Amino acid sequence: MSTHKLWGGRFEKQPEHWVDEFGASIFFDQLMAAEDLEGSLAHVKMLKHTKILPANEADQIIAGLQTLQEKLAANELEFTVENEDIHMNLEALLTKEIGPVAGKLHTARSRNDQVATDLHLYLKKRLKTVITCITELQSALLAKAELHQETLMPGYTHLQHAQPISYGHYLMAYWQMLKRDRERFCFNLKHTDISPLGAAALAGTTFPIDREYSANELDFSELYANSLDAVSDRDFALEFLSNASILMVHLSRFCEELILWCSYEFGYIELSDQYSTGSSIMPQKKNPDMAELIRGKSGRIFGDLMGLLTVLKGLPLAYNKDMQEDKEGVFDAVKTIIPCLKICTGMVETLTVKDDKMAHALDNDFSNATELADYLAKQGIPFRKAHEIAGKLVLTGIKEHQNLQDMPLESLQQAEPTIKDDVYAALSPKNAVLRRNSYGATGFEQVKQQIAQAKQIMANYKDN
Amino acid sequence: MSTHKLWGGRFEKQPEHWVDEFGASIFFDQLMAAEDLEGSLAHVKMLKHTKILPANEADQIIAGLQTLQEKLAANELEFTVENEDIHMNLEALLTKEIGPVAGKLHTARSRNDQVATDLHLYLKKRLKTVITCITELQSALLAKAELHQETLMPGYTHLQHAQPISYGHYLMAYWQMLKRDRERFCFNLKHTDISPLGAAALAGTTFPIDREYSANELDFSELYANSLDAVSDRDFALEFLSNASILMVHLSRFCEELILWCSYEFGYIELSDQYSTGSSIMPQKKNPDMAELIRGKSGRIFGDLMGLLTVLKGLPLAYNKDMQEDKEGVFDAVKTIIPCLKICTGMVETLTVKDDKMAHALDNDFSNATELADYLAKQGIPFRKAHEIAGKLVLTGIKEHQNLQDMPLESLQQAEPTIKDDVYAALSPKNAVLRRNSYGATGFEQVKQQIAQAKQIMANYKDN
Amino acid sequence: MSTHKLWGGRFEKQPEHWVDEFGASIFFDQLMAAEDLEGSLAHVKMLKHTKILPANEADQIIAGLQTLQEKLAANELEFTVENEDIHMNLEALLTKEIGPVAGKLHTARSRNDQVATDLHLYLKKRLKTVITCITELQSALLAKAELHQETLMPGYTHLQHAQPISYGHYLMAYWQMLKRDRERFCFNLKHTDISPLGAAALAGTTFPIDREYSANELDFSELYANSLDAVSDRDFALEFLSNASILMVHLSRFCEELILWCSYEFGYIELSDQYSTGSSIMPQKKNPDMAELIRGKSGRIFGDLMGLLTVLKGLPLAYNKDMQEDKEGVFDAVKTIIPCLKICTGMVETLTVKDDKMAHALDNDFSNATELADYLAKQGIPFRKAHEIAGKLVLTGIKEHQNLQDMPLESLQQAEPTIKDDVYAALSPKNAVLRRNSYGATGFEQVKQQIAQAKQIMANYKDN
Amino acid sequence: MSTHKLWGGRFEKQPEHWVDEFGASIFFDQLMAAEDLEGSLAHVKMLKHTKILPANEADQIIAGLQTLQEKLAANELEFTVENEDIHMNLEALLTKEIGPVAGKLHTARSRNDQVATDLHLYLKKRLKTVITCITELQSALLAKAELHQETLMPGYTHLQHAQPISYGHYLMAYWQMLKRDRERFCFNLKHTDISPLGAAALAGTTFPIDREYSANELDFSELYANSLDAVSDRDFALEFLSNASILMVHLSRFCEELILWCSYEFGYIELSDQYSTGSSIMPQKKNPDMAELIRGKSGRIFGDLMGLLTVLKGLPLAYNKDMQEDKEGVFDAVKTIIPCLKICTGMVETLTVKDDKMAHALDNDFSNATELADYLAKQGIPFRKAHEIAGKLVLTGIKEHQNLQDMPLESLQQAEPTIKDDVYAALSPKNAVLRRNSYGATGFEQVKQQIAQAKQIMANYKDN
Repeated sequence: MSTHKLWGGRFEKQPEHWVDEFGASIFFDQLMAAEDLEGSLAHVKMLKHTKILPANEADQIIAGLQTLQEKLAANELEFTVENEDIHMNLEALLTKEIGPVAGKLHTARSRNDQVATDLHLYLKKRLKTVITCITELQSALLAKAELHQETLMPGYTHLQHAQPISYGHYLMAYWQMLKRDRERFCFNLKHTDISPLGAAALAGTTFPIDREYSANELDFSELYANSLDAVSDRDFALEFLSNASILMVHLSRFCEELILWCSYEFGYIELSDQYSTGSSIMPQKKNPDMAELIRGKSGRIFGDLMGLLTVLKGLPLAYNKDMQEDKEGVFDAVKTIIPCLKICTGMVETLTVKDDKMAHALDNDFSNATELADYLAKQGIPFRKAHEIAGKLVLTGIKEHQNLQDMPLESLQQAEPTIKDDVYAALSPKNAVLRRNSYGATGFEQVKQQIAQAKQIMANYKDN
Repeated sequence: MSTHKLWGGRFEKQPEHWVDEFGASIFFDQLMAAEDLEGSLAHVKMLKHTKILPANEADQIIAGLQTLQEKLAANELEFTVENEDIHMNLEALLTKEIGPVAGKLHTARSRNDQVATDLHLYLKKRLKTVITCITELQSALLAKAELHQETLMPGYTHLQHAQPISYGHYLMAYWQMLKRDRERFCFNLKHTDISPLGAAALAGTTFPIDREYSANELDFSELYANSLDAVSDRDFALEFLSNASILMVHLSRFCEELILWCSYEFGYIELSDQYSTGSSIMPQKKNPDMAELIRGKSGRIFGDLMGLLTVLKGLPLAYNKDMQEDKEGVFDAVKTIIPCLKICTGMVETLTVKDDKMAHALDNDFSNATELADYLAKQGIPFRKAHEIAGKLVLTGIKEHQNLQDMPLESLQQAEPTIKDDVYAALSPKNAVLRRNSYGATGFEQVKQQIAQAKQIMANYKDN
Repeated sequence: MSTHKLWGGRFEKQPEHWVDEFGASIFFDQLMAAEDLEGSLAHVKMLKHTKILPANEADQIIAGLQTLQEKLAANELEFTVENEDIHMNLEALLTKEIGPVAGKLHTARSRNDQVATDLHLYLKKRLKTVITCITELQSALLAKAELHQETLMPGYTHLQHAQPISYGHYLMAYWQMLKRDRERFCFNLKHTDISPLGAAALAGTTFPIDREYSANELDFSELYANSLDAVSDRDFALEFLSNASILMVHLSRFCEELILWCSYEFGYIELSDQYSTGSSIMPQKKNPDMAELIRGKSGRIFGDLMGLLTVLKGLPLAYNKDMQEDKEGVFDAVKTIIPCLKICTGMVETLTVKDDKMAHALDNDFSNATELADYLAKQGIPFRKAHEIAGKLVLTGIKEHQNLQDMPLESLQQAEPTIKDDVYAALSPKNAVLRRNSYGATGFEQVKQQIAQAKQIMANYKDN
Repeated sequence: MSTHKLWGGRFEKQPEHWVDEFGASIFFDQLMAAEDLEGSLAHVKMLKHTKILPANEADQIIAGLQTLQEKLAANELEFTVENEDIHMNLEALLTKEIGPVAGKLHTARSRNDQVATDLHLYLKKRLKTVITCITELQSALLAKAELHQETLMPGYTHLQHAQPISYGHYLMAYWQMLKRDRERFCFNLKHTDISPLGAAALAGTTFPIDREYSANELDFSELYANSLDAVSDRDFALEFLSNASILMVHLSRFCEELILWCSYEFGYIELSDQYSTGSSIMPQKKNPDMAELIRGKSGRIFGDLMGLLTVLKGLPLAYNKDMQEDKEGVFDAVKTIIPCLKICTGMVETLTVKDDKMAHALDNDFSNATELADYLAKQGIPFRKAHEIAGKLVLTGIKEHQNLQDMPLESLQQAEPTIKDDVYAALSPKNAVLRRNSYGATGFEQVKQQIAQAKQIMANYKDN
């Protein structure tokens, strides 16, 4: 049991050990140890600069903190639950290092602005990693799409064959989603890159601090303009979890399709062994485990978001202990989405496209029925009528196991006399794709342009 | 029962009426009737411009659509469940208006790009209203804060008196949150203001359409660059629900405090009768009903967000019927957050501040204990030691029912001999606030500056 | 604007109309009009029985309420937003019917226990309907399973062929899930079937009421034993939304499989036209719209649950206006899950099983690899070793496009010399299923038993 | 990197180490190590009993597993990420212990039924602990309630004083909620206490296993009747998370009130120092940290529930890797709700009730206005009229700073001439409570009865 809490002045009894453990955050907030030390260094340098602390004392503290940084890097620091959280732990370690002068570090600061500073610093770094990982997945998709601009596959709606499309075009749809994801995480940086340091407990401090100085030290672009807001705000964490949730929507959709497409029935792609696993009982199994796991991990991220929204709902200002619950969800999301992105990148880079299977599927379906309807509409038949004629021919085809392109011209003309021999060209999947040449469409020319445009956009990505 | 579905060519049986009803969206998507007509107008004008439709036919359709617009404005359109959704309903009404040429409107378009266009148009308009409502609440907070820059109240952490603050400073914390909310909704516009029109079912179209033309007609700033993405993307709706959720976190926190503060026990404010209600059984009750309701409405918004995330999780491209579930949550959030913002504005404008009650609370607590600790720290006592001395004096005070400022100097000096007579000045709540003069702190000077800065920011808001 | 609120005694100002609208619940709580009248009737009968009201006055009120019941049934009641909620509306209508004596109905009652009573009555009725709908789906699954006890299909894990199973066995897995769903909704009844009537505002009443009398009138099995709990408790609603969520997990899984299995690639089943729809642009499409919509509707139900959990989180006792938000989610879930169940029943009853497609899939995969491993293990080879041998043969098979049953004996013996000619019998899909004869397994004998057991269980369902 | 996966037969490449780590579950599923060993022991005993394994081999395995049990208890087992999960790890350790015969343990079993068995066993144990912890909190509430049957406090609705109540009555409201929580977790046991062992991968096994035998060994009450269901079902986990969420709603409401009531403004209770903490900067602070943390922890539990619902939504049968995500949420909820319950018990047992503060609050409010209205109604004035008269008197009282009981008789009679001197007795808070004597009401007699009834119920709790 802790014998002497740092805040214990007015207290007569102490909690039992397991209660201490329940209340402690050191189990998880030690993930922010590096940021806590950075924040403390910036704070003490400011105290020195403003002469709130005499230079010699400040220097002692600075040296002590630097020693702790080295020890942390060398994995030599030991944290204890008695010291509750990372802030108290590091202060205790600093005291061990340099004696009671360590107590002066907390001048003009509170754990409330300290923990907020740590979380901002922590997330700012990870946001940059996330953004880089997105860029890498975009690159992988782009490279694969370029390779497969002219690979034909069935396009789906309602998981039914709809119209033939280019596989490269398909991949580029995910590139576009990731482009927006990237923009969201970049926007997220804006509300993360603000310094709360100096807001103290909630009201600022009576010491003549220089918040700009410490913010500069920490490379923050802005200062919170209101001390209550500075210690209560977790918008940047909510934004992060929202963005991570939307990202996971995208990745779960992509993985769902990977799973479908490497099934026996579809057989459109094969994943590399590196991203597949076997079964302990069924020797033939090659399971798209990673894709399934990523699809499933959408759940935990939505849960993390819901968790933090619930925590913050109806919470009066300023800091409340409930807010200790803000970290684990964010840490979990960081720990989850980075490898999800990397594995998706790896899967895209290493997957094998079975273009013969894709082509085969197109030769045996009715995904060219729109072509027929469009063909008729172009003869001047109102689209609704054209659609109905094509629908009836499909029904006949299904009953008689005959695709549209295999029906004799007389049969087609029986349905609609204006049909001519040129209908067969219109019905070929390749032509169907080629002729979809409106902006953003699946026509090869358009896909090529889209890829070129994407490369240009990526050339301006700063992390590239 | 519907006798002839527009897509019925290949079908032999029809669903029962109640199944039709279950599948129909006309009950709610009629909220987008105006947008659907706008979208159709832009589309047919493009068909005319590109000569896909002959001018005379296009003109007939244009005239028909304009008639429908007038009838809609006059509330004269009747929708039926037989026509499933707003798109089919309006096409049926158009056919009634102008005959079978109406069937040509759907040339080079699908319901998939049509519904996406409608939702983009719908949300774009509402986002602007939301942004305006936020601006108005910011104005109300700013005006009230300016009035109360020097009104003292207890600042809270853990719902315990922490340090005295300015009520104006408190209000400005919410102004800051709303500033970020506004930025988020503005960012949301970026991903909403993109035209999917022309993406057709999923793959674009073989007709020589001009997507830029129709996008211009609809005042969209950008085009989707990938047709699959255009019809599958609901990021803009997820962003909206995320942003609405974060906004509701803020409003629920504000309302929680309104509720606390107009309780008998706090008594810091009184809400106008306009935003309060009574009890059917207890005649004395004046309930902060509106504040409670807004706090509670956070739940439905979080639910709307969770709902759409779940719908989209793991959904293969492109359109699936699941996506019909994208609208009600968005409509519900729009319908909820706009009046929530307006009512908060009204409550802020009309509430009465009981500054005597606030001052009284400060005179009888220990929220000046930090002042004592800071006073001691400034004498050179390490902060941790200073904190402990102050803590012990508080404990004595609680036991002996005596506030710090009421303790005789000798008692204070017994605890710490260096304490002098000037301690009493440090202990006054007003001084405590005045002296918190670091950037963003609660000191009057800082609050004044913060308000000035806020005015400048608002002067640049374009909707103002 | 309302000129005279029923609770308006101490109020000087009135809210604006749109604020009234925002606060009003009559738009949705009119769904409980019948229950509100039932509750009022029981209450006034009790007031008569206990002589709190003189018989003649009570009789007048009873007659008035009965008139309202008739008018409600005839759809002749008109509700107004001025009267806020269903309770105030019905009291106003009663007053119009019988004059000021109507005011005595509210003696010894509050809206707090009144609304709780209504919601209990409402949900109790709907729970019974839900239970019946579950039973019907169980019946449909059972009937179909009985028909297809011996229909072979590939069993999946990771959406990869795992082992051959019986389609009847597959259907019975969903029967089992629904059995648990049914048990959950039955348990839910227990916490719904409790009368809060008489708890008044929160503390009970000073009138000598007889709560058992009114509970009996309403056919409630129990009374709330604590008045604060009676008006604050929404556990029964949370249980309902949890149960509905779990149900929707099951239905979404079933629908996902329907969608997969009626895809071109799987082709295992065909849905009836009644539960499918077409495309406005692609004439060949036959979309499993209903299955997709049900899958998607899981989202709204999870959202409803999350919404109510959020509303109730951290809410002090007893009634708060936030709790007005308890109803819409429940109503929405009722309105959703009942048709979802019915449509699933219809889809099961009318779907066509393509057993040739299922059989074909089994003849061309490696789902009999476990048979080989088991065959080897039964020769005494440790399972891990057996598994490895089988795995290697599968790899060879994939490379050489040869299924296990098509490999010559010599090839098999090269991999493991103890393999004999009887291996081919072990490798047939039918044998693989037949031989899985442990309790609960897919062997025909087991499926038959399972069906018999299920019939027995259903014979004891009281709603059957 | 793993050199030889147990399922590696058909694989040519291996994942990189960090991908292995991402896919591995050993980091968290080692929490089920004890259950995995129990399950394996039961399985091998069954294999011996059915002579599937020769007795000598089975005995070797049994001995090996028992050695592992001892080592686990002594904390001597080391798990590695190379072996992915707890099942593979323990099999590897068993092999080290007893050699290749260990490979025979997996005969007639798959990881799919193994992991399901583990999770059932794990949760069954924890459910019992949870139930015991609930019982303890009920006991604490009951004891405190008994002590405070006649302690008066203001009852609240809308956080406004409503009517005076007994503090004992208030506490019993939570007892009632916990009674339902307990019933829910007991019901949860029913769907947890079912053995999936023997379902194998998904289809049962060809070995002549005896599922009843192994289920008996594991003390399971029932067997899954369908093998697909056995390996796919996670209802018991969803039920647990739903129940935990509802429990956390209750605890969050209770903690919200603890926080309110130990605020300076309410001051109704004081928490023991054991469950409070101080501030690193404000020496006077005594924060109800534990209550806040518990309130906040509702968020993570709702998140855990939402996470698992999302994971399972739309997942085809049978096992998919997504389902690996089923555990952490459950473990987290177990780890959270048990200490939350214990700490609530501790806080209830050790809190100090400030009955003078409660009484004082009642003497200075208008919570006796209902008494006045009831008094008037009993004179025969229709309740609505009575309510209005009382409301107007309250308004006068507020304006003139005079409580109802302090108004002279003439003033009261001016409002309503039938008021007599006996009105003052009706207006005393104690009388107000005493006279609420309907079943379940706050009257002392009723509270006494309620407590007696509660004791009787608890006497039948089996874990007591």
